[in-house]
Amino acid sequence: MGIKVTVWNEFRHEKSHKTVQEVYPDGMHVVIAKFLQAAGYEVGTATLDEPEHGLTDAVLANTDVLLWWGHMAHHEVKDEIVDKVQQRVLNGMGLIVLHSGHFSKIFRRMMGTNCSLKWREMGERHRLWVVSPGHPIVEGLGEYFEIPHTEMYGEFFDIPQPDELVFLSWFQGGEVFRSGCCWHRGRGKIFYFQPGHETFPIYYQKEVQQVITNAVRWCAPVNVVNFRDMAQAPHHPEPLEKIVIE
Amino acid sequence: MGIKVTVWNEFRHEKSHKTVQEVYPDGMHVVIAKFLQAAGYEVGTATLDEPEHGLTDAVLANTDVLLWWGHMAHHEVKDEIVDKVQQRVLNGMGLIVLHSGHFSKIFRRMMGTNCSLKWREMGERHRLWVVSPGHPIVEGLGEYFEIPHTEMYGEFFDIPQPDELVFLSWFQGGEVFRSGCCWHRGRGKIFYFQPGHETFPIYYQKEVQQVITNAVRWCAPVNVVNFRDMAQAPHHPEPLEKIVIE
Amino acid sequence: MGIKVTVWNEFRHEKSHKTVQEVYPDGMHVVIAKFLQAAGYEVGTATLDEPEHGLTDAVLANTDVLLWWGHMAHHEVKDEIVDKVQQRVLNGMGLIVLHSGHFSKIFRRMMGTNCSLKWREMGERHRLWVVSPGHPIVEGLGEYFEIPHTEMYGEFFDIPQPDELVFLSWFQGGEVFRSGCCWHRGRGKIFYFQPGHETFPIYYQKEVQQVITNAVRWCAPVNVVNFRDMAQAPHHPEPLEKIVIE
Amino acid sequence: MGIKVTVWNEFRHEKSHKTVQEVYPDGMHVVIAKFLQAAGYEVGTATLDEPEHGLTDAVLANTDVLLWWGHMAHHEVKDEIVDKVQQRVLNGMGLIVLHSGHFSKIFRRMMGTNCSLKWREMGERHRLWVVSPGHPIVEGLGEYFEIPHTEMYGEFFDIPQPDELVFLSWFQGGEVFRSGCCWHRGRGKIFYFQPGHETFPIYYQKEVQQVITNAVRWCAPVNVVNFRDMAQAPHHPEPLEKIVIE
Repeated sequence: MGIKVTVWNEFRHEKSHKTVQEVYPDGMHVVIAKFLQAAGYEVGTATLDEPEHGLTDAVLANTDVLLWWGHMAHHEVKDEIVDKVQQRVLNGMGLIVLHSGHFSKIFRRMMGTNCSLKWREMGERHRLWVVSPGHPIVEGLGEYFEIPHTEMYGEFFDIPQPDELVFLSWFQGGEVFRSGCCWHRGRGKIFYFQPGHETFPIYYQKEVQQVITNAVRWCAPVNVVNFRDMAQAPHHPEPLEKIVIE
Repeated sequence: MGIKVTVWNEFRHEKSHKTVQEVYPDGMHVVIAKFLQAAGYEVGTATLDEPEHGLTDAVLANTDVLLWWGHMAHHEVKDEIVDKVQQRVLNGMGLIVLHSGHFSKIFRRMMGTNCSLKWREMGERHRLWVVSPGHPIVEGLGEYFEIPHTEMYGEFFDIPQPDELVFLSWFQGGEVFRSGCCWHRGRGKIFYFQPGHETFPIYYQKEVQQVITNAVRWCAPVNVVNFRDMAQAPHHPEPLEKIVIE
Repeated sequence: MGIKVTVWNEFRHEKSHKTVQEVYPDGMHVVIAKFLQAAGYEVGTATLDEPEHGLTDAVLANTDVLLWWGHMAHHEVKDEIVDKVQQRVLNGMGLIVLHSGHFSKIFRRMMGTNCSLKWREMGERHRLWVVSPGHPIVEGLGEYFEIPHTEMYGEFFDIPQPDELVFLSWFQGGEVFRSGCCWHRGRGKIFYFQPGHETFPIYYQKEVQQVITNAVRWCAPVNVVNFRDMAQAPHHPEPLEKIVIE
Repeated sequence: MGIKVTVWNEFRHEKSHKTVQEVYPDGMHVVIAKFLQAAGYEVGTATLDEPEHGLTDAVLANTDVLLWWGHMAHHEVKDEIVDKVQQRVLNGMGLIVLHSGHFSKIFRRMMGTNCSLKWREMGERHRLWVVSPGHPIVEGLGEYFEIPHTEMYGEFFDIPQPDELVFLSWFQGGEVFRSGCCWHRGRGKIFYFQPGHETFPIYYQKEVQQVITNAVRWCAPVNVVNFRDMAQAPHHPEPLEKIVIE
């Protein structure tokens, strides 16, 4: 495949909460990185407490698809790093935002909205229905799959209407949620996927791994030739066609 | 109608450039405000150099639809005002961004992209084609209209794919542009419209006035009941349905 | 308002099933027509067993928005009437398709898909969540409303991705459904709304009436000037600009 | 790749018009088939005058992506074949409709609209601008490419708003056109691409070949597990969750 992936994790819950350590002793990023490696991608990781949050210019330049998991420390992510990630996405890097990453600075920045939602942590049942059955992100799935115990995220989810809505969720407590959403932004592509939590062992579930693996492929950059940097607004004083002003 | 409109204008070109003064002696906002008033809206204006750029909490709270024209001083708009306008849009206020407003802080904030484009000022001919003929924004128009002399804005325009693409533009020099674009964001609606310039007398043109007048109506807030503030992510520990964890 | 509405009903269940008669003694179309009249629209009705199904050229020409309810006799609707309705929609008439109308010839024709879905009649609880809170179709609603007893319609619903997704449904039995969907087609607009059934008294429910009333306004035609008939593909041998072939 | 392609051509112009024979002596389908074979696909062809138009059940069952070129004999395509192709698309087969295929029965069927447009044959210049630079269909292209001599197709193009708009066209005579459009329908994907004509040698052009080659990959079916046939609307009397009627 040759797709280079960086899995970014806040990596705080795993250090401070014993129940989280039991599920993800080395951090969620390590579990995610492993199944993506097994799928044939080149995978690195980065975490909040590394210098520049592990997202140096060199790392970003070498990343085709960035995954993002954050929760308790969104506000600690530096704005200058968010700026750089945004520009990398607009210039082609794929971005996959997981679960509580809905409230990350980078996701809110890319969406232009609050990305707020309703939530509840009772460990209720969650069923994800496929509503775009020809989409490459559902490769290998059936018409739905279930997560036995999850945190509820409910509508209204304050996001732009997705360019492609892939999953709709049913929750035991009476809510629904747009749980798998695709957007095109500049030359990049973004996928938000609701499943995942620090204590429910959701990233070990086969279907969840399948979706994230598929999403990396969907998000991968497309090679275009001589496209301008998206931050530039070039002056074109020389028209392509002769202009006669009448 | 009862729709309350605020026309925001940077209002700098008109003070500093004689050629602009000749076209818009009292400022573009005054010309725009007048035809909106004539259409039956309650219209106020606000400009960059007023305290809080004329967009106090009271003004924003009393605005249903905000129009935005800026060009040479986008960077002087204070981030705290941009924050407030963004939240008002997400909570229902309509936003109409005109011409060079594509590079305003508020538009880039709402879009999550650079909103960059190509441009050229030769005064070439511009033809806007209707591609959504059932959209309320084209009420009263024919299949296209022309602007005799304009600044060219060309693709690639770095915006999210519009929820509703209303106008496509042809330029004499060989470019095309998505020149009338609608987005839903939170409880608000946004319309970007390319026509308008500080020296070409475009806001005096009948079809341009018609489109902006229609857009105000399309952008107006919808009354919903007890909807949460979009910035809140409420905890709902009490499910709507009984949950039995198995 | 001046909007002219025709409520079309198959009107067979009401004649042949006693339980249906008890709920809708004069037919569903009469109940729907009444609340639309009360909202200020000019409302007529038409039914399957009238000549030309009540949809003569004169009736269609005089209809701004057509509502459609059918179920047991979709196949009896004549193709030539479907052809005419399709062309009227493409030339500006609004179309609101209710409940089991998802399988009508006209809806399948307009969508280009099978419009198939899963279903179950147990009278379970149904909750409709607003996912487009700035849309005129949700005027007057809160963040969700409930229908106490309903027929379940579940995904995958074989429709084109809606241009605007307005309602998402939660069903007690574990399914979700895109239950309020908007499309633009030609100069016309189409709204599909899931609620409604021949024995559950759903068209008496206040929120359901509110949505349908709002939808009529959203669907109403827009006046454009000299737009061609959508069935024509005109030859334009005279270009708008001088062409020099090199 | 393992993607199986069938190139369908009406193949009448090539038999009856000498100027067409000179450009495509063996038929357009042969030229298209060759560059797709060179790209690594398994490619077959089918034409109108073969039994069942060359689209037997066996051929359709064995086709991942179908390309369609027709012009002078759209009405001769049998409705029962159109029915079968429609169902194959809804069940996953990709469909690429080329140029004058906009008026084919299968495209109009899938779109639900007339697919009408304006046209002119003067051999004018045509420039296609990329407006979705992260889309896999633009792999290998720059920000635009030109076709030196072409038939003009102009807006309004009576199609559903594309799920993904990839190319916008500029024509020398003053028109614009949505010339590269993607739709999801059922489990299938559809791409319409304007370039191509019976006498201008457009299918020999490198960029056009690149786009069609990319589109085949984008259109290819996605493997899902135990998804129902899209024509079925299954009854699910057994809910996934226990239902208690109150």
